[in-house]
Amino acid sequence: MKTIGLIGGLGPESTVDYYRSLINTHRALDPKGDPPSIIINSVNMEYVLRCLEGKRLQDLAEFFVVELQKLANAGADFALITANTPHIVFDDVERRSPLPLISIVEATADRAQQSGFEHVGLIGTRFTMQATFYPVVFARKEMQIHVPKESEQEYIHERYFSELVKGVFRDETRRGLAEIIARMRDRNGIQAAILGGTELPLILRGGEAAGVPLLDTTQIHVGAALARLIG
Amino acid sequence: MKTIGLIGGLGPESTVDYYRSLINTHRALDPKGDPPSIIINSVNMEYVLRCLEGKRLQDLAEFFVVELQKLANAGADFALITANTPHIVFDDVERRSPLPLISIVEATADRAQQSGFEHVGLIGTRFTMQATFYPVVFARKEMQIHVPKESEQEYIHERYFSELVKGVFRDETRRGLAEIIARMRDRNGIQAAILGGTELPLILRGGEAAGVPLLDTTQIHVGAALARLIG
Repeated sequence: MKTIGLIGGLGPESTVDYYRSLINTHRALDPKGDPPSIIINSVNMEYVLRCLEGKRLQDLAEFFVVELQKLANAGADFALITANTPHIVFDDVERRSPLPLISIVEATADRAQQSGFEHVGLIGTRFTMQATFYPVVFARKEMQIHVPKESEQEYIHERYFSELVKGVFRDETRRGLAEIIARMRDRNGIQAAILGGTELPLILRGGEAAGVPLLDTTQIHVGAALARLIG
Repeated sequence: MKTIGLIGGLGPESTVDYYRSLINTHRALDPKGDPPSIIINSVNMEYVLRCLEGKRLQDLAEFFVVELQKLANAGADFALITANTPHIVFDDVERRSPLPLISIVEATADRAQQSGFEHVGLIGTRFTMQATFYPVVFARKEMQIHVPKESEQEYIHERYFSELVKGVFRDETRRGLAEIIARMRDRNGIQAAILGGTELPLILRGGEAAGVPLLDTTQIHVGAALARLIG
Protein backbone atom coordinates (compact mmCIF):
# COMPACT_ATOMS: atom_id res chain seq x y z
CA MET A 1 0.00 0.00 0.00
CA LYS A 2 1.15 3.57 -0.68
CA THR A 3 2.32 5.91 2.08
CA ILE A 4 0.66 9.32 2.55
CA GLY A 5 2.92 12.25 3.39
CA LEU A 6 1.60 15.25 5.32
CA ILE A 7 3.23 18.62 5.82
CA GLY A 8 1.67 19.43 9.20
CA GLY A 9 1.92 21.83 12.10
CA LEU A 10 0.12 24.64 10.25
CA GLY A 11 -1.33 24.65 12.93
CA PRO A 12 -1.08 21.58 15.13
CA GLU A 13 -4.81 21.24 15.88
CA SER A 14 -5.60 20.95 12.19
CA THR A 15 -2.82 18.33 11.84
CA VAL A 16 -4.64 16.30 14.52
CA ASP A 17 -7.89 16.75 12.57
CA TYR A 18 -6.26 15.50 9.33
CA TYR A 19 -4.62 12.54 11.07
CA ARG A 20 -7.77 11.41 12.86
CA SER A 21 -9.84 11.90 9.75
CA LEU A 22 -7.44 9.86 7.57
CA ILE A 23 -7.47 7.00 10.09
CA ASN A 24 -11.22 7.07 10.77
CA THR A 25 -12.37 7.59 7.18
CA HIS A 26 -10.07 4.79 6.04
CA ARG A 27 -11.45 2.53 8.81
CA ALA A 28 -15.02 3.30 7.66
CA LEU A 29 -14.13 2.51 4.03
CA ASP A 30 -12.18 -0.68 4.87
CA PRO A 31 -13.11 -1.88 8.41
CA LYS A 32 -10.98 -5.05 8.28
CA GLY A 33 -8.02 -3.56 6.44
CA ASP A 34 -4.72 -2.47 7.90
CA PRO A 35 -4.47 1.25 8.74
CA PRO A 36 -2.81 3.49 6.13
CA SER A 37 0.88 4.35 6.50
CA ILE A 38 1.19 8.06 7.18
CA ILE A 39 4.32 10.19 7.58
CA ILE A 40 3.76 13.59 9.14
CA ASN A 41 6.40 16.30 9.01
CA SER A 42 5.24 18.89 11.54
CA VAL A 43 7.07 22.02 10.47
CA ASN A 44 7.83 25.43 11.99
CA MET A 45 4.61 27.45 11.61
CA GLU A 46 6.26 30.59 12.96
CA TYR A 47 8.75 30.57 10.08
CA VAL A 48 5.88 30.19 7.59
CA LEU A 49 4.07 33.16 9.15
CA ARG A 50 7.22 35.28 9.05
CA CYS A 51 7.58 34.55 5.32
CA LEU A 52 3.91 35.44 4.70
CA GLU A 53 4.04 38.64 6.75
CA GLY A 54 7.24 39.68 4.97
CA LYS A 55 5.86 38.72 1.54
CA ARG A 56 8.89 36.41 1.11
CA LEU A 57 7.07 33.96 -1.13
CA GLN A 58 10.19 32.54 -2.78
CA ASP A 59 11.63 31.67 0.62
CA LEU A 60 8.30 30.09 1.52
CA ALA A 61 8.24 27.92 -1.60
CA GLU A 62 11.85 26.89 -0.99
CA PHE A 63 10.95 25.95 2.60
CA PHE A 64 8.17 23.63 1.46
CA VAL A 65 10.38 21.97 -1.16
CA VAL A 66 12.97 21.21 1.55
CA GLU A 67 10.31 19.86 3.94
CA LEU A 68 8.71 17.76 1.18
CA GLN A 69 12.11 16.26 0.44
CA LYS A 70 12.15 14.91 4.02
CA LEU A 71 8.80 13.19 3.38
CA ALA A 72 10.16 11.76 0.13
CA ASN A 73 13.27 10.52 1.97
CA ALA A 74 11.01 8.82 4.53
CA GLY A 75 9.23 6.94 1.74
CA ALA A 76 6.01 8.91 1.19
CA ASP A 77 4.46 8.29 -2.25
CA PHE A 78 2.56 11.57 -2.47
CA ALA A 79 1.92 14.48 -0.14
CA LEU A 80 -0.57 17.02 1.13
CA ILE A 81 0.22 20.43 2.56
CA THR A 82 -2.39 20.43 5.33
CA ALA A 83 -3.37 24.08 5.24
CA ASN A 84 -4.95 26.49 2.78
CA THR A 85 -2.75 29.57 3.15
CA PRO A 86 0.50 27.89 1.97
CA HIS A 87 -1.29 27.04 -1.29
CA ILE A 88 -0.45 30.65 -2.20
CA VAL A 89 2.87 29.15 -3.44
CA PHE A 90 1.43 25.79 -4.53
CA ASP A 91 2.18 26.08 -8.26
CA ASP A 92 5.81 26.96 -7.62
CA VAL A 93 6.21 24.22 -4.98
CA GLU A 94 4.52 21.61 -7.18
CA ARG A 95 6.90 22.30 -10.08
CA ARG A 96 9.91 21.63 -7.83
CA SER A 97 8.42 19.03 -5.49
CA PRO A 98 10.16 15.63 -5.22
CA LEU A 99 6.68 14.11 -4.64
CA PRO A 100 3.31 14.36 -6.37
CA LEU A 101 1.09 16.76 -4.42
CA ILE A 102 -2.67 16.92 -3.97
CA SER A 103 -3.91 20.51 -3.95
CA ILE A 104 -6.56 21.43 -1.40
CA VAL A 105 -7.85 24.07 -3.84
CA GLU A 106 -8.19 21.69 -6.80
CA ALA A 107 -9.90 19.09 -4.59
CA THR A 108 -12.33 21.70 -3.28
CA ALA A 109 -13.06 23.06 -6.77
CA ASP A 110 -13.81 19.52 -7.99
CA ARG A 111 -16.24 19.02 -5.11
CA ALA A 112 -17.97 22.41 -5.67
CA GLN A 113 -18.32 21.69 -9.39
CA GLN A 114 -19.85 18.26 -8.70
CA SER A 115 -22.44 20.00 -6.49
CA GLY A 116 -23.31 22.41 -9.33
CA PHE A 117 -22.35 25.59 -7.48
CA GLU A 118 -21.53 28.72 -9.50
CA HIS A 119 -21.05 31.34 -6.80
CA VAL A 120 -19.01 30.30 -3.79
CA GLY A 121 -17.89 32.29 -0.73
CA LEU A 122 -14.41 31.94 0.74
CA ILE A 123 -13.33 32.56 4.32
CA GLY A 124 -9.84 31.94 5.68
CA THR A 125 -6.78 33.90 6.69
CA ARG A 126 -6.29 37.37 5.17
CA PHE A 127 -3.51 35.87 3.02
CA THR A 128 -5.95 33.35 1.55
CA MET A 129 -8.86 35.77 1.05
CA GLN A 130 -6.68 38.39 -0.65
CA ALA A 131 -4.71 36.01 -2.88
CA THR A 132 -5.67 34.82 -6.34
CA PHE A 133 -5.07 31.09 -5.90
CA TYR A 134 -8.71 30.24 -5.11
CA PRO A 135 -10.34 32.52 -7.76
CA VAL A 136 -7.98 31.34 -10.53
CA VAL A 137 -8.61 27.62 -9.97
CA PHE A 138 -12.38 28.13 -9.61
CA ALA A 139 -12.58 30.38 -12.69
CA ARG A 140 -11.07 27.55 -14.78
CA LYS A 141 -14.11 25.50 -13.80
CA GLU A 142 -16.47 28.43 -14.44
CA MET A 143 -17.18 29.19 -10.81
CA GLN A 144 -16.84 32.56 -9.13
CA ILE A 145 -15.23 33.09 -5.70
CA HIS A 146 -16.59 35.83 -3.42
CA VAL A 147 -14.70 37.09 -0.39
CA PRO A 148 -15.89 39.10 2.64
CA LYS A 149 -15.57 42.88 2.86
CA GLU A 150 -12.29 44.31 4.18
CA SER A 151 -13.60 44.85 7.74
CA GLU A 152 -15.02 41.31 7.81
CA GLN A 153 -11.68 39.96 6.56
CA GLU A 154 -9.93 41.75 9.43
CA TYR A 155 -12.31 40.15 11.93
CA ILE A 156 -11.80 36.63 10.57
CA HIS A 157 -8.01 36.94 10.32
CA GLU A 158 -7.67 38.31 13.83
CA ARG A 159 -9.84 35.58 15.39
CA TYR A 160 -8.03 32.94 13.33
CA PHE A 161 -4.63 33.67 14.83
CA SER A 162 -5.63 34.85 18.31
CA GLU A 163 -8.06 31.98 18.96
CA LEU A 164 -8.47 29.15 16.44
CA VAL A 165 -4.80 28.35 15.83
CA LYS A 166 -4.40 28.16 19.62
CA GLY A 167 -7.28 25.70 19.96
CA VAL A 168 -9.72 28.28 21.45
CA PHE A 169 -13.26 27.92 20.09
CA ARG A 170 -15.81 30.52 21.32
CA ASP A 171 -19.56 30.66 20.64
CA GLU A 172 -19.28 34.40 20.01
CA THR A 173 -16.73 33.80 17.24
CA ARG A 174 -18.89 31.01 15.81
CA ARG A 175 -21.82 33.47 15.55
CA GLY A 176 -19.60 36.19 14.07
CA LEU A 177 -18.40 33.87 11.29
CA ALA A 178 -21.97 32.69 10.54
CA GLU A 179 -23.13 36.32 10.25
CA ILE A 180 -20.43 37.06 7.69
CA ILE A 181 -21.52 34.02 5.66
CA ALA A 182 -25.17 35.23 5.86
CA ARG A 183 -24.16 38.67 4.58
CA MET A 184 -22.22 37.13 1.67
CA ARG A 185 -25.33 35.12 0.79
CA ASP A 186 -27.45 38.31 0.72
CA ARG A 187 -24.80 40.42 -1.04
CA ASN A 188 -23.27 37.97 -3.52
CA GLY A 189 -25.79 35.13 -3.79
CA ILE A 190 -23.27 32.52 -2.68
CA GLN A 191 -24.60 28.95 -2.85
CA ALA A 192 -21.87 27.54 -0.57
CA ALA A 193 -19.02 28.78 1.61
CA ILE A 194 -15.51 27.35 1.57
CA LEU A 195 -13.98 26.90 5.01
CA GLY A 196 -10.67 27.91 3.44
CA GLY A 197 -8.60 27.56 6.59
CA THR A 198 -8.17 24.16 8.18
CA GLU A 199 -8.90 25.48 11.67
CA LEU A 200 -12.36 26.71 10.55
CA PRO A 201 -14.05 23.26 10.47
CA LEU A 202 -13.02 22.96 14.12
CA ILE A 203 -15.39 25.84 14.99
CA LEU A 204 -18.02 25.66 12.21
CA ARG A 205 -19.25 22.10 12.45
CA GLY A 206 -22.42 20.55 11.10
CA GLY A 207 -22.17 21.20 7.38
CA GLU A 208 -23.95 24.55 7.16
CA ALA A 209 -24.02 28.05 8.61
CA ALA A 210 -26.94 30.51 8.18
CA GLY A 211 -28.50 27.94 5.83
CA VAL A 212 -25.46 28.02 3.51
CA PRO A 213 -23.73 24.66 2.84
CA LEU A 214 -20.12 24.61 4.02
CA LEU A 215 -17.25 23.06 2.11
CA ASP A 216 -14.90 21.58 4.73
CA THR A 217 -11.54 21.72 2.96
CA THR A 218 -9.90 19.31 5.46
CA GLN A 219 -12.47 16.57 4.80
CA ILE A 220 -12.37 17.17 1.05
CA HIS A 221 -8.55 17.03 1.05
CA VAL A 222 -8.58 13.83 3.15
CA GLY A 223 -11.12 12.27 0.77
CA ALA A 224 -8.90 13.07 -2.21
CA ALA A 225 -5.88 11.55 -0.43
CA LEU A 226 -7.71 8.31 0.37
CA ALA A 227 -9.02 8.08 -3.19
CA ARG A 228 -5.40 8.29 -4.37
CA LEU A 229 -4.26 5.78 -1.73
CA ILE A 230 -6.86 3.17 -2.57
CA GLY A 231 -7.15 3.92 -6.28
CA MET B 1 17.17 22.91 16.78
CA LYS B 2 17.01 19.13 16.78
CA THR B 3 14.12 17.19 15.20
CA ILE B 4 12.14 14.67 17.26
CA GLY B 5 11.13 11.44 15.52
CA LEU B 6 8.06 9.50 16.65
CA ILE B 7 7.04 5.97 15.73
CA GLY B 8 3.27 6.45 16.04
CA GLY B 9 -0.01 4.78 15.24
CA LEU B 10 0.24 2.36 18.19
CA GLY B 11 -2.60 3.40 18.49
CA PRO B 12 -3.57 6.62 16.76
CA GLU B 13 -5.25 8.28 19.77
CA SER B 14 -2.10 7.99 21.79
CA THR B 15 -0.11 9.45 18.87
CA VAL B 16 -2.43 12.48 19.05
CA ASP B 17 -1.80 12.67 22.81
CA TYR B 18 2.00 12.61 22.29
CA TYR B 19 1.87 15.20 19.50
CA ARG B 20 -0.35 17.64 21.43
CA SER B 21 1.69 17.15 24.58
CA LEU B 22 5.00 17.79 22.79
CA ILE B 23 3.63 21.00 21.24
CA ASN B 24 1.87 22.26 24.38
CA THR B 25 4.59 21.36 26.88
CA HIS B 26 7.19 22.98 24.62
CA ARG B 27 5.00 26.11 24.34
CA ALA B 28 4.70 26.26 28.14
CA LEU B 29 8.50 25.94 28.54
CA ASP B 30 9.32 28.46 25.79
CA PRO B 31 6.24 30.62 25.03
CA LYS B 32 7.98 32.84 22.45
CA GLY B 33 10.05 30.12 20.81
CA ASP B 34 9.39 28.39 17.52
CA PRO B 35 7.54 25.06 17.79
CA PRO B 36 9.68 21.91 17.77
CA SER B 37 10.18 20.05 14.49
CA ILE B 38 8.52 16.65 14.77
CA ILE B 39 8.44 13.80 12.26
CA ILE B 40 5.80 11.16 12.93
CA ASN B 41 5.86 7.81 11.18
CA SER B 42 2.41 6.34 11.82
CA VAL B 43 2.94 2.62 11.26
CA ASN B 44 0.73 -0.42 10.75
CA MET B 45 -0.53 -1.35 14.24
CA GLU B 46 -2.23 -4.49 12.92
CA TYR B 47 1.11 -5.89 11.76
CA VAL B 48 2.62 -5.17 15.20
CA LEU B 49 -0.26 -7.01 16.88
CA ARG B 50 0.10 -9.98 14.55
CA CYS B 51 3.80 -10.22 15.48
CA LEU B 52 2.97 -10.01 19.21
CA GLU B 53 0.15 -12.57 19.01
CA GLY B 54 2.40 -14.92 17.01
CA LYS B 55 5.37 -14.34 19.34
CA ARG B 56 7.40 -13.28 16.29
CA LEU B 57 9.65 -10.92 18.24
CA GLN B 58 12.51 -10.94 15.75
CA ASP B 59 10.15 -9.85 12.97
CA LEU B 60 8.84 -7.13 15.29
CA ALA B 61 12.31 -5.80 16.05
CA GLU B 62 13.16 -5.86 12.34
CA PHE B 63 9.96 -3.92 11.59
CA PHE B 64 10.86 -1.13 14.02
CA VAL B 65 14.42 -0.89 12.67
CA VAL B 66 13.00 -0.40 9.14
CA GLU B 67 10.47 2.18 10.34
CA LEU B 68 13.13 4.04 12.36
CA GLN B 69 15.31 4.19 9.25
CA LYS B 70 12.51 6.21 7.59
CA LEU B 71 12.62 8.72 10.46
CA ALA B 72 16.41 8.90 10.15
CA ASN B 73 16.08 9.46 6.39
CA ALA B 74 13.64 12.30 7.10
CA GLY B 75 16.21 14.00 9.33
CA ALA B 76 15.12 13.08 12.86
CA ASP B 77 17.93 13.40 15.40
CA PHE B 78 16.53 10.90 17.92
CA ALA B 79 13.32 8.92 18.26
CA LEU B 80 10.61 7.65 20.57
CA ILE B 81 8.50 4.54 20.07
CA THR B 82 5.23 5.97 21.38
CA ALA B 83 3.87 2.88 23.10
CA ASN B 84 4.85 0.62 25.97
CA THR B 85 4.21 -2.84 24.52
CA PRO B 86 6.79 -2.56 21.67
CA HIS B 87 9.44 -1.93 24.32
CA ILE B 88 9.38 -5.71 24.68
CA VAL B 89 11.96 -5.65 21.85
CA PHE B 90 13.57 -2.32 22.82
CA ASP B 91 17.06 -3.63 23.61
CA ASP B 92 17.29 -5.46 20.29
CA VAL B 93 15.90 -2.47 18.33
CA GLU B 94 18.20 -0.02 20.12
CA ARG B 95 21.29 -2.05 19.20
CA ARG B 96 20.40 -1.88 15.50
CA SER B 97 18.65 1.51 15.38
CA PRO B 98 20.02 4.15 13.00
CA LEU B 99 18.92 6.77 15.57
CA PRO B 100 19.39 7.23 19.32
CA LEU B 101 16.20 6.14 21.11
CA ILE B 102 14.62 7.28 24.36
CA SER B 103 13.10 4.35 26.26
CA ILE B 104 9.70 4.90 27.89
CA VAL B 105 10.70 2.32 30.53
CA GLU B 106 14.01 3.99 31.45
CA ALA B 107 12.34 7.42 31.58
CA THR B 108 9.60 6.05 33.85
CA ALA B 109 12.09 4.28 36.11
CA ASP B 110 14.08 7.51 36.47
CA ARG B 111 10.93 9.35 37.48
CA ALA B 112 9.85 6.65 39.96
CA GLN B 113 13.30 6.63 41.53
CA GLN B 114 13.29 10.45 41.89
CA SER B 115 9.99 10.10 43.78
CA GLY B 116 11.53 7.55 46.15
CA PHE B 117 9.15 4.70 45.29
CA GLU B 118 10.24 1.13 46.00
CA HIS B 119 7.12 -0.88 45.12
CA VAL B 120 5.35 0.10 41.92
CA GLY B 121 2.31 -1.43 40.19
CA LEU B 122 2.14 -1.87 36.43
CA ILE B 123 -0.97 -2.01 34.25
CA GLY B 124 -0.94 -2.23 30.46
CA THR B 125 -1.55 -4.81 27.75
CA ARG B 126 -1.13 -8.50 28.62
CA PHE B 127 2.13 -8.44 26.61
CA THR B 128 3.52 -5.67 28.83
CA MET B 129 2.31 -7.11 32.15
CA GLN B 130 3.69 -10.59 31.39
CA ALA B 131 7.03 -9.49 29.93
CA THR B 132 10.24 -8.84 31.85
CA PHE B 133 11.18 -5.49 30.34
CA TYR B 134 9.65 -3.37 33.14
CA PRO B 135 10.83 -5.54 36.09
CA VAL B 136 14.40 -5.79 34.74
CA VAL B 137 14.89 -2.04 34.30
CA PHE B 138 13.27 -1.24 37.66
CA ALA B 139 15.28 -3.92 39.48
CA ARG B 140 18.50 -2.24 38.30
CA LYS B 141 17.37 0.83 40.23
CA GLU B 142 16.30 -1.27 43.24
CA MET B 143 12.57 -0.97 42.67
CA GLN B 144 10.11 -3.83 42.46
CA ILE B 145 7.33 -4.07 39.85
CA HIS B 146 4.01 -5.70 40.82
CA VAL B 147 1.45 -6.79 38.25
CA PRO B 148 -2.27 -7.62 38.63
CA LYS B 149 -3.56 -11.18 39.06
CA GLU B 150 -4.21 -13.22 35.92
CA SER B 151 -7.99 -12.54 35.88
CA GLU B 152 -7.36 -8.81 36.36
CA GLN B 153 -4.80 -8.87 33.54
CA GLU B 154 -7.41 -10.47 31.27
CA TYR B 155 -9.89 -7.70 32.12
CA ILE B 156 -7.39 -4.88 31.42
CA HIS B 157 -6.13 -6.43 28.17
CA GLU B 158 -9.61 -7.04 26.83
CA ARG B 159 -10.82 -3.49 27.61
CA TYR B 160 -7.60 -2.07 26.18
CA PHE B 161 -8.14 -3.48 22.71
CA SER B 162 -11.95 -3.51 22.56
CA GLU B 163 -12.37 0.05 23.89
CA LEU B 164 -9.33 2.24 24.59
CA VAL B 165 -7.44 1.70 21.34
CA LYS B 166 -10.68 2.57 19.51
CA GLY B 167 -11.08 5.81 21.44
CA VAL B 168 -13.94 4.51 23.63
CA PHE B 169 -13.68 5.68 27.27
CA ARG B 170 -16.36 4.35 29.66
CA ASP B 171 -16.93 5.26 33.32
CA GLU B 172 -17.44 1.58 34.12
CA THR B 173 -13.99 0.72 32.73
CA ARG B 174 -12.46 3.67 34.61
CA ARG B 175 -13.90 2.27 37.86
CA GLY B 176 -12.76 -1.27 37.02
CA LEU B 177 -9.17 -0.10 36.49
CA ALA B 178 -9.19 1.94 39.72
CA GLU B 179 -10.42 -1.11 41.66
CA ILE B 180 -7.53 -3.21 40.36
CA ILE B 181 -5.07 -0.49 41.45
CA ALA B 182 -6.72 -0.42 44.91
CA ARG B 183 -6.37 -4.20 45.23
CA MET B 184 -2.67 -4.02 44.25
CA ARG B 185 -2.18 -1.38 46.94
CA ASP B 186 -3.75 -3.67 49.57
CA ARG B 187 -2.04 -6.82 48.30
CA ASN B 188 1.43 -5.58 47.32
CA GLY B 189 1.81 -2.23 49.08
CA ILE B 190 2.39 -0.37 45.82
CA GLN B 191 3.26 3.32 46.30
CA ALA B 192 2.46 4.25 42.70
CA ALA B 193 0.95 2.68 39.56
CA ILE B 194 2.50 2.89 36.11
CA LEU B 195 0.00 3.57 33.33
CA GLY B 196 2.07 1.26 31.17
CA GLY B 197 -0.03 1.60 28.03
CA THR B 198 -0.24 4.97 26.32
CA GLU B 199 -4.02 4.73 25.95
CA LEU B 200 -4.43 4.42 29.77
CA PRO B 201 -3.80 8.13 30.56
CA LEU B 202 -6.68 8.88 28.19
CA ILE B 203 -9.09 7.16 30.61
CA LEU B 204 -7.32 7.54 33.99
CA ARG B 205 -6.80 11.28 34.25
CA GLY B 206 -6.02 13.41 37.30
CA GLY B 207 -2.79 11.91 38.56
CA GLU B 208 -4.18 9.34 41.01
CA ALA B 209 -6.63 6.44 41.31
CA ALA B 210 -7.89 5.01 44.61
CA GLY B 211 -5.43 7.35 46.33
CA VAL B 212 -2.45 5.81 44.49
CA PRO B 213 -0.27 8.23 42.46
CA LEU B 214 -0.24 7.39 38.73
CA LEU B 215 2.85 7.51 36.54
CA ASP B 216 1.66 8.71 33.11
CA THR B 217 4.21 7.14 30.78
CA THR B 218 3.21 9.39 27.85
CA GLN B 219 3.89 12.60 29.81
CA ILE B 220 7.11 11.19 31.27
CA HIS B 221 8.30 10.12 27.79
CA VAL B 222 7.42 13.54 26.33
CA GLY B 223 9.27 15.26 29.17
CA ALA B 224 12.38 13.17 28.48
CA ALA B 225 12.16 14.01 24.76
CA LEU B 226 11.90 17.76 25.39
CA ALA B 227 14.80 17.61 27.87
CA ARG B 228 16.89 16.01 25.09
CA LEU B 229 15.64 18.55 22.52
CA ILE B 230 16.43 21.60 24.61
CA GLY B 231 19.48 20.23 26.43
